[in-house]
Amino acid sequence: MLFSESFIFTAREDPKTADCTSHKLLLKGCFLYMVSSGIYSYLPLGHRVLENVSNIIRKHMNACGAQEILMSALQPIEMWQKTGRDKDLEEVMFKFKDRKNRDLCLGPTHEEEITEIVAKFLTSYKQLPFTLYQIQAKFRDEPRPRFGLMRSAEFIMKDAYSFDIDEEGLALNYEKMLGAYKKIFTECGLEFVEVKADSGVMGGDVSHEFMVAAAIGEDELFYCDKCKQYFKESGKCCNCKLDLKEVKTVEIGHVFKLGAKYSKVGGAMFLDNKGKSQPVIMGCYGIGVSRILPAIVQTNHDDKGIIWPKGISPFDVSILILSDGAKENAIEISGTLEDLGISTLVDDRPLSAGVKFNDAYLIGNPFVVVVGKNFINSGKLDIEVRKTKEKLCFTKDEAIDFLKKEYGK
Amino acid sequence: MLFSESFIFTAREDPKTADCTSHKLLLKGCFLYMVSSGIYSYLPLGHRVLENVSNIIRKHMNACGAQEILMSALQPIEMWQKTGRDKDLEEVMFKFKDRKNRDLCLGPTHEEEITEIVAKFLTSYKQLPFTLYQIQAKFRDEPRPRFGLMRSAEFIMKDAYSFDIDEEGLALNYEKMLGAYKKIFTECGLEFVEVKADSGVMGGDVSHEFMVAAAIGEDELFYCDKCKQYFKESGKCCNCKLDLKEVKTVEIGHVFKLGAKYSKVGGAMFLDNKGKSQPVIMGCYGIGVSRILPAIVQTNHDDKGIIWPKGISPFDVSILILSDGAKENAIEISGTLEDLGISTLVDDRPLSAGVKFNDAYLIGNPFVVVVGKNFINSGKLDIEVRKTKEKLCFTKDEAIDFLKKEYGK
Repeated sequence: MLFSESFIFTAREDPKTADCTSHKLLLKGCFLYMVSSGIYSYLPLGHRVLENVSNIIRKHMNACGAQEILMSALQPIEMWQKTGRDKDLEEVMFKFKDRKNRDLCLGPTHEEEITEIVAKFLTSYKQLPFTLYQIQAKFRDEPRPRFGLMRSAEFIMKDAYSFDIDEEGLALNYEKMLGAYKKIFTECGLEFVEVKADSGVMGGDVSHEFMVAAAIGEDELFYCDKCKQYFKESGKCCNCKLDLKEVKTVEIGHVFKLGAKYSKVGGAMFLDNKGKSQPVIMGCYGIGVSRILPAIVQTNHDDKGIIWPKGISPFDVSILILSDGAKENAIEISGTLEDLGISTLVDDRPLSAGVKFNDAYLIGNPFVVVVGKNFINSGKLDIEVRKTKEKLCFTKDEAIDFLKKEYGK
Repeated sequence: MLFSESFIFTAREDPKTADCTSHKLLLKGCFLYMVSSGIYSYLPLGHRVLENVSNIIRKHMNACGAQEILMSALQPIEMWQKTGRDKDLEEVMFKFKDRKNRDLCLGPTHEEEITEIVAKFLTSYKQLPFTLYQIQAKFRDEPRPRFGLMRSAEFIMKDAYSFDIDEEGLALNYEKMLGAYKKIFTECGLEFVEVKADSGVMGGDVSHEFMVAAAIGEDELFYCDKCKQYFKESGKCCNCKLDLKEVKTVEIGHVFKLGAKYSKVGGAMFLDNKGKSQPVIMGCYGIGVSRILPAIVQTNHDDKGIIWPKGISPFDVSILILSDGAKENAIEISGTLEDLGISTLVDDRPLSAGVKFNDAYLIGNPFVVVVGKNFINSGKLDIEVRKTKEKLCFTKDEAIDFLKKEYGK
């Protein structure tokens, strides 16, 4: 992609509406557009990151045998009246009537709908187990939308639902999902904590949250500096007895053993191997997909901009053309890398080196290849590693080999 | 994918709610679930087809240099008051208030929002041209939702928007998009017609519709049997003077030259090369992504089920295991094909050949590989070509070569 042809228009000034670093950097770097308080659109850079995160999630969900679906955002309110959650979630639901006076809402979550779907198709234990998931916009009328994508009225969520014959099957699926979540968050470059949590409005009795420590967090955990361990309750560390420190955290995932709560009410029953009717045993597994973006940025940046992890960044490599004479060579390097499956953003704009470096740092691709006069004179180019600030001087072939190795191509 | 582990539960009976063949087959084949009138969820098979169609669209949009974004579904009503289209589209808009009494609607289309976004970033002619697109759920309170995904309240649309310095630039982009549309619909296996159309509520003065002739269509065209040509008005063919025949059609795409209508109102202005402020010249280009599914099915089926075109089908190949002894071989063939990038659905269920063939025809993958007793005895398997009903007898290696060739691998 040529920068001159892209829809990337970074801001020089800090945006006034930003209430935290991650949000500031996502707005400034032209990743996001604020439509209105709590409502955002993803611009090309933001969309690329969102897709990268989504595809990592898909990879690990599919590896667990989960099958992707796409449920409706529009839901009849009757669906919620059956479980009584129309009352529990009343405050955050967007509700309205259609022209036929039908009461509808926008799905804030999809336990009710998935249970209805499964109830329609499930008859026998022979069909079990299975897991379904989707990546979809969810809607919640937040009392205090803030921190950009951290707490917004419209957000992208991955929600998976497992269906088993019994609690043993659920336990297996639950463990499988916990394993997949660790892989997903690790691949997203997040330092996360897994903590036992309350099930709250979801019901069920076992639940785990995945949290990222961040200054802007809204939830509290307690941390032992010595044992490097997190706790849900304050007080003293159960290992070393030292006082626990309060830490703000952001929830990026939450998994629940739901048991038969929804299947009983929704009539998702099956005949077991003795011919007896049983409610299917469910688990549900959420990831705040859009929230992962600010969670990464909040913990991966410096004063110049974002430092995206490899595989998450909008492009793998930024290539800066710092001399007109180097343009052809830069385009050639870009072509070679693209053919290898390494994506490039080539800054071909007639602007100063300073502006180009600033934008490259702000956008935050992991490697910045600098092709300038030095390349014309001596055939050498520089690669800056965004994270370590390391500067490497290479010939063209060495540079390509280096990047091939970095991206396992 | 093993059938026994999949969420594919086909129906024996025709669903009562289906009001046309495509809808009947999509429900019966477990592609879709009806949540409520006009509201659907995509089950794993439907989701796979939807993704295949979306990825064909993405390929051709990206080849035009269009950049993918994702706008919000929630929109403040003020956005629509500026263009006056809150009145024009009042009847189909879902409108509601949030807890802060803010008036919101669900985007029935996104000209207003994209214009606001571009207005924020556009300053100079040097930034132009560019084209942005998204694939996203849209919401319209349909007076008569019917024919399943053909006319539903929540549907998936690809909407692209081009931005140019002048009408000449727009003309170029418009032609490029017309070209991309023809490639997209051809790759989707659709026999389509391109006709000049009214701009209606969109404004602008040039517009083309892409239509598929289908018995269930809601729009009318007029056709000359002799010249094989479509016309918008009834009467006589302007070539051969024969009477035109009335034909029902379904709209699958619509492109508009919008000119400066939205940019003037939305303040999407730029300084031209003489330093004069000008409104950006816009085009918009829609494809009814979810509508493409029934459009394909309506024109690609037989009495046994769907006949998906290659590249659209949920899987490339169905593999039926018709003898227990053949299971291992079938799994091995599946593995070989999957490694080649040819996706397979292996019917490993302990069911009769009749049931397996019925489901394979209903699901409609282009090739059905039959591995049974014959394979154990003589090393031969059958491939049925779903479209031509041709039956080919091959050794394993011949079969793999045949499928490699069919899928250009």
